[in-house]
Formats: sequence, structure tokens, C-alpha cells
Amino acid sequence: MKTLLLAVLAALSLSACVSVTATGDLGVVIERADGKVAVVNTTERTVLAEIDGLGDLSHASVVFSRDQRFAFVFGRDGGLTKVDLVTQRIAGRVLQSGNSIGGAISQDGRLVAVSNYEPGGVRVFDADSLEMVADIPTGSKVVGLVDAPGRRFVFSLFDAGEIWMADFSQGPSPRMTRYANVGKQPYDALITDDGRTYIAGLFGEDGFALLDLWHPERGVRRVLDGYGRGEQPLPVYKMPHLEWLTVSGGLAYLPAIGRHEVLVMDTATWRQVGAVPVLGQPVFIVAQPDKRRLWVNFAFPDNDKVQLIDVESRSVAATLTTGKGTLHLEFTPRGEEVWLSLRDEDAVSVWDVATLTPITRLNIAKPSGIFFTPRAYKTGM
Amino acid sequence: MKTLLLAVLAALSLSACVSVTATGDLGVVIERADGKVAVVNTTERTVLAEIDGLGDLSHASVVFSRDQRFAFVFGRDGGLTKVDLVTQRIAGRVLQSGNSIGGAISQDGRLVAVSNYEPGGVRVFDADSLEMVADIPTGSKVVGLVDAPGRRFVFSLFDAGEIWMADFSQGPSPRMTRYANVGKQPYDALITDDGRTYIAGLFGEDGFALLDLWHPERGVRRVLDGYGRGEQPLPVYKMPHLEWLTVSGGLAYLPAIGRHEVLVMDTATWRQVGAVPVLGQPVFIVAQPDKRRLWVNFAFPDNDKVQLIDVESRSVAATLTTGKGTLHLEFTPRGEEVWLSLRDEDAVSVWDVATLTPITRLNIAKPSGIFFTPRAYKTGM
Repeated sequence: MKTLLLAVLAALSLSACVSVTATGDLGVVIERADGKVAVVNTTERTVLAEIDGLGDLSHASVVFSRDQRFAFVFGRDGGLTKVDLVTQRIAGRVLQSGNSIGGAISQDGRLVAVSNYEPGGVRVFDADSLEMVADIPTGSKVVGLVDAPGRRFVFSLFDAGEIWMADFSQGPSPRMTRYANVGKQPYDALITDDGRTYIAGLFGEDGFALLDLWHPERGVRRVLDGYGRGEQPLPVYKMPHLEWLTVSGGLAYLPAIGRHEVLVMDTATWRQVGAVPVLGQPVFIVAQPDKRRLWVNFAFPDNDKVQLIDVESRSVAATLTTGKGTLHLEFTPRGEEVWLSLRDEDAVSVWDVATLTPITRLNIAKPSGIFFTPRAYKTGM
Repeated sequence: MKTLLLAVLAALSLSACVSVTATGDLGVVIERADGKVAVVNTTERTVLAEIDGLGDLSHASVVFSRDQRFAFVFGRDGGLTKVDLVTQRIAGRVLQSGNSIGGAISQDGRLVAVSNYEPGGVRVFDADSLEMVADIPTGSKVVGLVDAPGRRFVFSLFDAGEIWMADFSQGPSPRMTRYANVGKQPYDALITDDGRTYIAGLFGEDGFALLDLWHPERGVRRVLDGYGRGEQPLPVYKMPHLEWLTVSGGLAYLPAIGRHEVLVMDTATWRQVGAVPVLGQPVFIVAQPDKRRLWVNFAFPDNDKVQLIDVESRSVAATLTTGKGTLHLEFTPRGEEVWLSLRDEDAVSVWDVATLTPITRLNIAKPSGIFFTPRAYKTGM
């Protein structure tokens, strides 16, 4: 009888119930210095767990599974780690290259793609097993990898000046479309919310390369020529990102590289129609979920502040002192609160979006990117 | 020892582990004839459970909790039922009036509001406990209840011709704003995705009443005068809905009441700029998540078909024979598939959006509304 009791207790332990049973209000925060992620709850405003062993997260990004149970974390060292938000453990991990820069998940949630510098190319994995499904060598550093509707991935070749599209709609062997001579050194790219427009920034030229995915037969065209034109070239210490372009009301907002301005572009013509002066060099520009205001953070030495741009008047509506090393921000699903990572204060602070006052702060070591589960539903996130 | 074993087994049973631990890919389907809802999984395309005892669901709608664990089901008989998608049981239920027509959940997920015909008014409940927080009698049937950013609810008074806004941002006693003389007999209303514009359809006049929630001080104005102008009034057998207005690329699409057309409105001027002929009288007009096509279903006798309108060309791109009594449709979170309720075939069918072919069908008795958990993140859904 005692043996039976022990067997029952063992079974009970094995099937241990987890306390978290819904994931709609969860997220992860990257702890860049320690190779950890913090699993957070945005309703309770708490850290549920810290998960260790994710390698080099000095440049990391995250996508979520279709059911919002798993976070796929892409590390700088080529590590692809699948984190289970329910059991709060690592569910799988592969070191798939020596040096990677980003990833994406297919529209149906079944494929996870990673873009690599070394060796240059894209590798595609089964989202369940993390087994490799396809290997696409490119002979060039790959940047700006995004998912597009119809089980497609689109990415840019930094060294070769090309944009490639891999279409997995017919199975694990992708149908490839290649666009050559799109411009010198595409350094990053984004896809608009609707999954229609892919735009790559060019490092070696003054402009952007645009691909309309509703009409891929029309090829890649140049837009925003003269973006930054007439200015003295400024020293660029690191590759800029392009993820922060935000489209709101037919207008797109881009950071002016090296200048204290946010540029306003008309997405019908892709020409500049305005500029908003801000207090520093913009890094991320993120729209509130209601699209009424944009929140902008800044490069050093102005990285303790955030400014809010009112979309109607196209002017700064508020300047907040948020804390030292304000690296990133993410809105709660319906936008009533915003979370800000304060790297140099080892904290994440939570602000009320209506009253613009801080609500609470969480102790998280050297936080960088913040990613909440609603991203599971978004194209190119 | 035997007693101890039994105690352990009893404890094991009480804390029974649930198999579903993430809710991002779940949803509910209303079984209108039986007072049941089916809990479904859109990844596996399965029915996980049927939950009984929800009363009269002949006109039902659903909102979801912030964490996507709970569905709040609003029944025709005034029943408000909280369904736990994880344990697949009823977590709470109140019969809060004799006759209700819809509900909403606040931006922060803490308040659930229900609009009532009898007695006319709005009642607001704590989302956790279902205890009543506020009672707002209106002396009129209430329609078109929606949530708006900033812990607000907006609704219309059918008999009184008014629009009211209840602001709970300061606590459980709402600050009320009332707009009188907005037009005769508002019958339904909607709020745009961004939570900015509230539009009520008028049953007793030819037009709509619009409230800009970014500028509530400007009051309510009339738009779309002459909507349906010049046509012979047609018999109206039931109150039309307004939930199907879809805004895409600055244009809104409305069913032409009593005619075989979808009307195209410019949301900058709120004037008609076009019309798309379709095969029957439109009921629901739903945009694909990528906004490239609109899916339209029809009133009897054309309710076995769905037409797809291509947004670029503003013309019908495909006509699908979907099945008898096609009442409602809902896209999977990122839009690769669509679920259609076929009331007269006791089935829900799932279609591939890229190839426009049916994938599978599920046996569900007399299905009507289909609601997936991503609605948790949407204003006015």
C-alpha cells in the first residue's frame, strides 16, 4: 500500500499542474547581459519566472506561436530557443548558425525562419520539433527577414544587394523569387501591418527599395530617394534598425538618421510631407494601439526621455523623463498601459497611457526588448 | 494508509490537470437552438467541448477577458454567462435583465457592460466576480453598446434618440455625457478599430449619427444623409445590424439596405464614392486580416453563397457556394483560414483563404456566431 501511495504521489508530481493557464496577457523581456528572459504578466504586472541559458542575447528578437504558448527567441549567436510560457521552461533549443540577426514565423505558425550572417543564408525550422525543414544559402549576410501572407518569407542580401522571396505554400521546398540590383547594401527591412509592402533601407545609397507583395511581378522599385539628402553624412556607429516605421492614417513615420527629427512620409506617393522636431536622435517610434500618439525614444545622451507626438497636430504633445537607458517600449494589448525597459536602472517601468504617470516598476536586470503575446497575431512581428 | 491514499486521490481529482493550457488559438461557436456554445481549436480544427445551460442564444454575442481565458456570452434573455475556456465549464452566470441585446468589455478588461431593452439601460459588472458595479437606467431601449479607450462605454437610446457616454476612468461611479436629438431611432452602432469614431445608424431617418471620441466636445453630427436615398422603401423584417462596416484604406463598406449592393464610403468626408453590385442582399461584410478582400454573406434566399470583393479593383473576385444557411464567418488570427457557420447543415466549414477551397467541416448544431480569442485585443469587438 505504501508503494502504491508513492506511485500515486509520483504520478501526481509528474503531471504537476501549472498555475498559469492562459497566455493572452503574458510576455517576455530580454535580459541582455545574462542570457535570460523574464516571463511577465501584464494584468498583475509581475515577473512570473526567469529562464536561463539562452546564450548571447545582446541583439535578440522574439516571435510567438499561434496558440501563444511558446516564445521563439532569436539570439545573436545563432541560438534559436523555444520557451514554454506555461511551464516556464525551455522546450527546445538549436544553435543553428554562428551569427544570426533575426527571425520570423509563418502565417500558419508551422515554420520558424532565421536569418544568418555566418554562414550567410536563411534556415527554416519546424515550429513543433525545431527540426530543419529548409536551408537557403545566399553567399551574403541576410537582413530584414519577415513573414508575409501565404506561407512566404522575404529577406534582403546585404552584400549582394538583392531581395529574395521564399514561398512555402506548396510544401517544404520553397519556390524562390529573386530581385537583383535593388540598391547598395540593404541593412534592414520591414513589412507593413497588412503584409502588403516590404521596404528595405539602403546603407550604401540614399533611399529605400520597395516590393509590393500584392504585385510581385512588378518588381522592386526605389522610393524615398533623398531621404536625408542635403545633410552632412554623420558617423554611423551601428547599423540602424527599420522596425520602428509606423504607418498611421496613410502616413509613415521614420527617424531622421543622425538628426533630431521624425520624418513624415505619405505612403501613397512615398514622399516626405513633413518633419517633427524632437529632443534627440530617435530610435524607436511606436504608435499607441489607438494610433492617436506616437511614442519616441532616443539615442545617448537623451536616452532617459520619451516624447509623445500627437498625430493630429504632428507636434510633440508631452516629454516624459522615463529613466536611464530607456531602450525599448511595448504597449499592453489594448493600449491602456505601456512598459519601458530601463537598462541602466535594471528595471522595467509601467506607465498609465491616459494620465501619463508611472504605475509601478519591476526589477529586471539589464532589460532590452519587451515582447507581448499579441504579436502572435501580427504579420512581420 | 488506505484512508491516506483515498485522500491523495481525492486531492488529485480536485486539482485535476487540464489539457488545454494556452488559449490563443481557441474560440466559441454559438449553438443558437440549444443554448450551448462549442469551444473550438483553430490549429487542430476541432471541437474541444460543448457547454450547456446558457439560456436563449437566439441573438448572442461574445467578448473575451484580457488573458483570453474567459468568454463572456450575452444572451437574448438577459443572461450574462462567463465561460472558462481552460476548464471548459461555466465560471459564473447572472440573469441580469429580462431582455438584452449586446455587451462590451472595458479597455483594461475589468468591467463588463450589458445593454438592455427591458428594463431599458446599461448594467456594468465586475469581470472577475460578476457583481454589479453600476446600474444606468435610461428609460429607453439601449442599442449599439461599445467599449472605447479610457474605460469608457458608449451607447444609443432607441426610443429617446440620444447617445450616452459613461466614463469609468475615475472609479465605479461613471461620469456621464449625454447627446440629445442625434436623430430618430438609432438602431445599432459601431466604433472604428482605432476607437475614435462612434457611428449610429438611424431607423427613423435617412442617415447616421457620428461622434468623434477624440473631440467629444464637438458633439454629434449627421453623416451619410441620403444613404439609400431615391429608392423605394423596402419592408424591413428585422432590425439591421451595423457591426459589419469595415474600414480599409480610408474607405468604409456598408450593405445597401434592401438592395443588392455594397456601398463604398470615404471616411474623410463620409460621402458615398462607389457601389459594388453583389448577388443578394448583404448581411455581414468582413475584411480579411490583410485587408485585400472583403467577404460578404447574404440574406435568404441567397444565404448559401459568399462573394469576395477585391479591394483594389472594387469588384467581385470570386463567388463561393459555401452551404445552406451561411450565417456568419470569422477569420483565423492571421487570416490563412476562415470558418463559416452553416446553420441549415448543422456544420461549421473551414476554408483555405489562399486557394479558396474547403479544408474540413465540424459537426455543430445550428451554429450562428463564431468568435475567436484575438477579439480580446480589439476595441468594440
